[in-house]
Amino acid sequence: MPSHGEKKSPGKLYIVGIGPGSQGQITGDATKAIRDSEVIIGNAAYLDQIAGLTSGKRVIRSSMGHEVERAREAVGLASRSRVAMVSGGDPGVYGMAGIVLEVVDNMGSSIPVEVIPGVTAATAAAALVGSPLSGDFAVVSLSDLLTPWEVIEHRLRAVVRAGMPLVLYNPRSRTRSANFGRAMKIVLDILPDSTPMALVRHAYREGEQVITLTAGEWETVEEQVDMHTVVIIGSEETRFWRNGNETRGIITPRGYHRKYVY
Amino acid sequence: MPSHGEKKSPGKLYIVGIGPGSQGQITGDATKAIRDSEVIIGNAAYLDQIAGLTSGKRVIRSSMGHEVERAREAVGLASRSRVAMVSGGDPGVYGMAGIVLEVVDNMGSSIPVEVIPGVTAATAAAALVGSPLSGDFAVVSLSDLLTPWEVIEHRLRAVVRAGMPLVLYNPRSRTRSANFGRAMKIVLDILPDSTPMALVRHAYREGEQVITLTAGEWETVEEQVDMHTVVIIGSEETRFWRNGNETRGIITPRGYHRKYVY
Repeated sequence: MPSHGEKKSPGKLYIVGIGPGSQGQITGDATKAIRDSEVIIGNAAYLDQIAGLTSGKRVIRSSMGHEVERAREAVGLASRSRVAMVSGGDPGVYGMAGIVLEVVDNMGSSIPVEVIPGVTAATAAAALVGSPLSGDFAVVSLSDLLTPWEVIEHRLRAVVRAGMPLVLYNPRSRTRSANFGRAMKIVLDILPDSTPMALVRHAYREGEQVITLTAGEWETVEEQVDMHTVVIIGSEETRFWRNGNETRGIITPRGYHRKYVY
Repeated sequence: MPSHGEKKSPGKLYIVGIGPGSQGQITGDATKAIRDSEVIIGNAAYLDQIAGLTSGKRVIRSSMGHEVERAREAVGLASRSRVAMVSGGDPGVYGMAGIVLEVVDNMGSSIPVEVIPGVTAATAAAALVGSPLSGDFAVVSLSDLLTPWEVIEHRLRAVVRAGMPLVLYNPRSRTRSANFGRAMKIVLDILPDSTPMALVRHAYREGEQVITLTAGEWETVEEQVDMHTVVIIGSEETRFWRNGNETRGIITPRGYHRKYVY
């Protein structure tokens, strides 16, 4: 129930997804929220991506790994100003929305909050690769900073056994360099070596890299997998996709072949 | 390997995600691809959504349920023209990308094809609800037109048992009116009745509806669930989210509470 006697706050907090990589991947509504804001908060890479939208505004650069402090600061500022907290991809998928909303709730804040969705890294990577996520799929982060590794392993097995393509976020960091390999071994306990998979690094950004390979070949790309990489692992139905004479990506057919001849 | 002797085709096929509901949810790159195209193909609802972008172009309205024919037509036209096949949300998630790329491959076509991602219904719905998909999650369609119902049931169980929030696409149609209820019974075999869930209908569109409730209350909303609805079912970690004195949505905390006091 809205409380009536309360003084209306002049502030507002937008949590804005700016999509992957380039400014061409931002939606109109996200652009509008940024333009409407007096204060923009985000880490350096995200602020660079929207540099064309922030002139004349107060810009607060934050660094990775201080999410709770950044969230608190944003909520504080939003009590008197219009604030946009920007997040790469979609803010609700391993982004800032969850933690900011938690902080709003815990502080008992009644500032108006709006989450603006963006193109998430999973579907951005999928588009660059073909159509590996055409049907059901799951998204799992390999970062065991906030989730115990046993839980991650259980999820990987459950998803792969259920025949769903899998998108891995945060697949490998300097301090967690073994996680990608550990995940691939779990996958290959269940799926054949020939299963198509793909790596997308720096999607829609300078230095973009798209690699398709079979799951059995994962060791050949391990060194290239980092926190800017999204890994897509197909299901048993996934196959390589040809465009003319060239193999250009991977697709997971949705089963139309069972219903139609074409 | 690219074939060199081949005559370069003047055509191009864009498979474009126009995001959910309103024109404000389209990215700049998607808008550019539509503007660059001479022919636009899509179903009526999607064409209405981008009406401001198609004047002076050849517009082909297609109806639901003829995906293979529509894909073939698009590939045929794209051998001599620039064609945009538009899809709501992201074209790679239960959209047209999979079937179009299959048809390209099966026809041996070498026309240039580009998939342009969009904001997918799962994250759009999540943004309207709060942040229910902050961590790992899975997306499952309840349509058993292309996937056997036993496979769908197995996926639902696997995802819910693995502690991941679940997004249901195509939850209930006139001809498959029981599927939503069947899915909820499977969910409630594993999760407590108090699990937060949400329904989003016509996201970012006229008539938008956002309802949060507990999983145990699903029968009270069953009649409102249709093919324009996305259903989000939380995990054991999901909880209702308060904004001041009002309960306004649901969030799935990412586990920062295990690492930080705030």
